[in-house]
Amino acid sequence: MTPETRPVPTAADVHDAATRLHGAVVRTPLIRFSALDAALNATCLIKPETLQHTGSFKFRGAYNKISQLPDDTKQNGVVAFSSGNHAQGVAHAAQLHGIPATIVMPSDAPRMKIDNTRSYGAEVRLYERYFENREAVAADLVANQGATLIKPYDDPDIIAGQGTCGLEIAADLDAQGLTPDVALICCGGGGLAAGSAIALHDRFPGCEIYAVEPAGFDDHARSLAAGRRVRNEGGATSICDALLAPTPGELTFDVNRRHLAGGLAVGDDEVRAAMRYAFRTMKLVVEPGGVVTLAAALSEKLDLADRTCVMVLSGGNVDPSTYCEVLAD
Amino acid sequence: MTPETRPVPTAADVHDAATRLHGAVVRTPLIRFSALDAALNATCLIKPETLQHTGSFKFRGAYNKISQLPDDTKQNGVVAFSSGNHAQGVAHAAQLHGIPATIVMPSDAPRMKIDNTRSYGAEVRLYERYFENREAVAADLVANQGATLIKPYDDPDIIAGQGTCGLEIAADLDAQGLTPDVALICCGGGGLAAGSAIALHDRFPGCEIYAVEPAGFDDHARSLAAGRRVRNEGGATSICDALLAPTPGELTFDVNRRHLAGGLAVGDDEVRAAMRYAFRTMKLVVEPGGVVTLAAALSEKLDLADRTCVMVLSGGNVDPSTYCEVLAD
Repeated sequence: MTPETRPVPTAADVHDAATRLHGAVVRTPLIRFSALDAALNATCLIKPETLQHTGSFKFRGAYNKISQLPDDTKQNGVVAFSSGNHAQGVAHAAQLHGIPATIVMPSDAPRMKIDNTRSYGAEVRLYERYFENREAVAADLVANQGATLIKPYDDPDIIAGQGTCGLEIAADLDAQGLTPDVALICCGGGGLAAGSAIALHDRFPGCEIYAVEPAGFDDHARSLAAGRRVRNEGGATSICDALLAPTPGELTFDVNRRHLAGGLAVGDDEVRAAMRYAFRTMKLVVEPGGVVTLAAALSEKLDLADRTCVMVLSGGNVDPSTYCEVLAD
Repeated sequence: MTPETRPVPTAADVHDAATRLHGAVVRTPLIRFSALDAALNATCLIKPETLQHTGSFKFRGAYNKISQLPDDTKQNGVVAFSSGNHAQGVAHAAQLHGIPATIVMPSDAPRMKIDNTRSYGAEVRLYERYFENREAVAADLVANQGATLIKPYDDPDIIAGQGTCGLEIAADLDAQGLTPDVALICCGGGGLAAGSAIALHDRFPGCEIYAVEPAGFDDHARSLAAGRRVRNEGGATSICDALLAPTPGELTFDVNRRHLAGGLAVGDDEVRAAMRYAFRTMKLVVEPGGVVTLAAALSEKLDLADRTCVMVLSGGNVDPSTYCEVLAD
């Protein structure tokens, strides 16, 4: 199907995903930190998806996808390519379904992400980021094993699964009697942003939703401004290993261009400062790519004064050595 | 009043404290980590009071106490002595009530605890742990300023306030349809254990509740075994700066001897391993004294197989340099 005819997930799809995930997912809280509210002169709600199974939201989409595979296909297992958080999400979801998983990961992925993926029982196939094509490696595995490729974001079931994060946020805002003015969502391929935007706007249509990306990898920000999918220019580097997608997904962009108010980009130093803030004030371990929303807020990419702002933090898979280099800065 | 005639807090007192704290306290979640369940072959529920205001449960008792001071007395402010977490709890609760606070802290307290206490607007009076008597320093301040001393644990209002932690645990267990077999509670002077035990036993009378202490500072364990308050022998050291009380409180022991099944003690290496586990698997920053319950579980001080076990983690105020020394081990 072309992007135009591919089914765009709806709020009902997100609700269905939530039903499938019930009991399997960690119902992560929505937390206020008085020090953050005071620092930003705003009402800030933090959604720590770092506390999710595998340390990131990626488990949601992977579980939603795998639980819907036909039984005969499912037994052949699943394949994914990922720098690490999708890898762990797919590996753990496959483990819970009792099926094999093979994950294609770059050899320079954080050690913790590779180790954790193996700890969930998956076979890890390392590839060289600069010499091999990960899609081709994964396609070979699909052809040879009859396994199903679990895409990282450009799949309606993945998007609907990630959307359960937004659905929980909406429910908790309701329970606290709050209406969000702004939501900041970390963004690589755009699956979390797309799914969460669908769920948040279904309940709070007036909420301004922003994708937050690393500087130099702000393909969503520029695509949203241009009204069409734009690729990142080559040559940039970022500490945010989880958010280095080259371009918005076709399906995710189709959703995000309808829902997002725009994109914000944060630099490595802003990310490091936010990691230290999360350590010191929130007592949360957050990896570089997981803390970009907080980094955007703390470095005032947006005026949040007197507004109610939701920020998703995800994930928390960072090597101790990297973490302590950041804390020592 | 003698300990015998002093009012022992009841479950109703804890409920009243919860009403006073409503809206002021962070309603911390009760979280399962599938990796921990698998490691211990148990159903483990983590109560991360690290996410509480000031990074520890101490805010609960301080707020409950200060909110009940008579208006004329309240205006003269409050005084507390503390190695750091009670200090921050009192400072922030006083700040929210708009009254001055003076906190007497040892000069060798973790830097973060001293800095944070000041950041909540309190005046910090440092004393030399080995040359000055902190009670005397605080008593001088009370006499000269007409301020009220906020005791760290031996006060019914403090105990009832800390008990709201246990009340939330009981409510969340109910919501998840779980009955706890065991609860592990970190223990210095015994206020959190006493208050939480009252609330937990009111709902789950069959739950075995254990105080967890640092090795060499296991005065509760030995007092519970002896049936009377026993002091720690001098000369021991521990990385758990928050849990170095010399003996159980009079009032807290009066409660704890009726409720606790016993005490468990953990060594520094077990504490360090648990801090690394919390970093790696839970993405939670926990200070040495805050992680003793997890340390006891991971080092199998108790057989938890096939049981449902609650563990309170509190607090999270650890200097980056100390934290990274532990992560690097």
